[in-house]
Amino acid sequence: MQIKNRITELFNIKYPIVLGGMVWVSGWKLAKAVSNCGGLGLIGAGSMKAELLAQHIDKFRKNSTKPFGVNIPLLRKDSDDLINLIIEKNVEIVFTSAGNPAKYTDLLKKHRIKVVHVVSSVKQAKKAESVGCDAVVGEGVEAGGHNGIDELTTFTLITLLKNNLSIPIIAAGGIAHGSQIAASFVLGAEGIQIGTLFAAAIESSAHSNYKQAIINSGENDTTLAFRKIGLVRMIKNNLTARISEAEAKGATNQELLNILGEKREMRGIFEGDLNEGMLEAGQSAALVNCVDSVKTIFERLLTEYNASIDELKRG
Amino acid sequence: MQIKNRITELFNIKYPIVLGGMVWVSGWKLAKAVSNCGGLGLIGAGSMKAELLAQHIDKFRKNSTKPFGVNIPLLRKDSDDLINLIIEKNVEIVFTSAGNPAKYTDLLKKHRIKVVHVVSSVKQAKKAESVGCDAVVGEGVEAGGHNGIDELTTFTLITLLKNNLSIPIIAAGGIAHGSQIAASFVLGAEGIQIGTLFAAAIESSAHSNYKQAIINSGENDTTLAFRKIGLVRMIKNNLTARISEAEAKGATNQELLNILGEKREMRGIFEGDLNEGMLEAGQSAALVNCVDSVKTIFERLLTEYNASIDELKRG
Repeated sequence: MQIKNRITELFNIKYPIVLGGMVWVSGWKLAKAVSNCGGLGLIGAGSMKAELLAQHIDKFRKNSTKPFGVNIPLLRKDSDDLINLIIEKNVEIVFTSAGNPAKYTDLLKKHRIKVVHVVSSVKQAKKAESVGCDAVVGEGVEAGGHNGIDELTTFTLITLLKNNLSIPIIAAGGIAHGSQIAASFVLGAEGIQIGTLFAAAIESSAHSNYKQAIINSGENDTTLAFRKIGLVRMIKNNLTARISEAEAKGATNQELLNILGEKREMRGIFEGDLNEGMLEAGQSAALVNCVDSVKTIFERLLTEYNASIDELKRG
Repeated sequence: MQIKNRITELFNIKYPIVLGGMVWVSGWKLAKAVSNCGGLGLIGAGSMKAELLAQHIDKFRKNSTKPFGVNIPLLRKDSDDLINLIIEKNVEIVFTSAGNPAKYTDLLKKHRIKVVHVVSSVKQAKKAESVGCDAVVGEGVEAGGHNGIDELTTFTLITLLKNNLSIPIIAAGGIAHGSQIAASFVLGAEGIQIGTLFAAAIESSAHSNYKQAIINSGENDTTLAFRKIGLVRMIKNNLTARISEAEAKGATNQELLNILGEKREMRGIFEGDLNEGMLEAGQSAALVNCVDSVKTIFERLLTEYNASIDELKRG
């Protein structure tokens, strides 16, 4: 893969491959591993308070001189603290998600921070572009974790974004094979973001039970839950069975919130409770077959990418 | 597009572009238009009894010498009649869907008929391969009309199929732009099937109101309904609002069947009742912006396809 485009230039990276900033997964170790392979590692602040995030940033910098970014879910109550920390620490790249990109983009841009917003529709993407974001991540409904209500798939979403945006697009959702990277570029993306595949990597800070659950997942093993209170894709287990049952009976928002309870993500992803935890993962879990190092994963992705491009050029 | 592969050879066609066999849409006129452009036109038997299907086959043959096929939903009570007619009429290509491919494949193959089965999972695809189908259509959940319960997206499904099948794959679901054809090939498909875009074509037998509803649809305008009694993607309207409300309240299967009632597809697609009819359409409706002839659509798809391939080769 020899690619020079707006995404490799924006982040000053070799490969336009971005690590999704996943809660309980994307700590400094995983981010460092991805950045050191030539991609862009993101530290996922979703499960971190400002103090812990500061430690991850420091540790990344102590162990790598490569570019990295931080992902911040804007719906966090302490998002001000996280944003202020980003500025204070001179972090150069921020991915924002789950909230209004108008809230901080101006402030971040004033500090010359590159801002990328995660979107699940053209409507959100045009908003992000209009407030000055440098790029968007277009995330299809096959992605793990929180999902957009429009439920647009990667295949549809990236094509629509390409037809409607001027800023560059990073494709996300369902990507765990090099041919899908090539396909994303054909659809008009200039970068791709990978979650689930890296969540199962050796360097991921997730529990080994959770990694094994991804490995074991087949094509029919993730589900979209909580349509009423905020859509999440996760691996089926006791918890999702209870949610499905409640949803089928017409559970109220409060009843669903009661089932959700607290700290389900921590319980599933970090503590490895496979029955009662939220095991956020994308449909691409079916494509992930072993726990590998990020280096091995990168080599495989690049080999697969090159093979699919070669085949197309021959065809 | 200059492609010689197993799909162009199987059907003896110039372009591996297949018309979806859509109820109330894919009559002999639309099938003829697609076949005459170098693709494969399918007559959709879903809304036809054997006698009417016979007329469509005869009219196609009176107006074109190109290859064509017939799509037969296997759940039809009179599927025996339809299959016998196919054999009697020496139809050379059959696409089967919505049912067990083991039921007729042997019989059809004995008459040297090429059989393609529509699948929404690897499990179904391996079954189709094992009973002797010549190819599969892998249809992602972005597709209009009836959908698989696994809700796999085109991006995920085609990649999984490529990893698990030996017979050729035709990608379907969400395709309405030439770049998506190229992306499907990169993912490993050797052909693509298009529904919604052709449903809005001049030659489609659908009502002009329905075509206009596709044109008017934006990214947020289709929904998946009837999870409990058989998933269908359609354009949002009064009917889907009532279904959503009932589903959110935990309606029983019988209550949902009562809402569904009878002949909703005919009412929406053929009679043009935009409020109370089922307006089956895929997420790709957001990519369809005008009612064109099939010839114009083909020219646009090929131009878009070539542009995306050229860009990739340059990149």
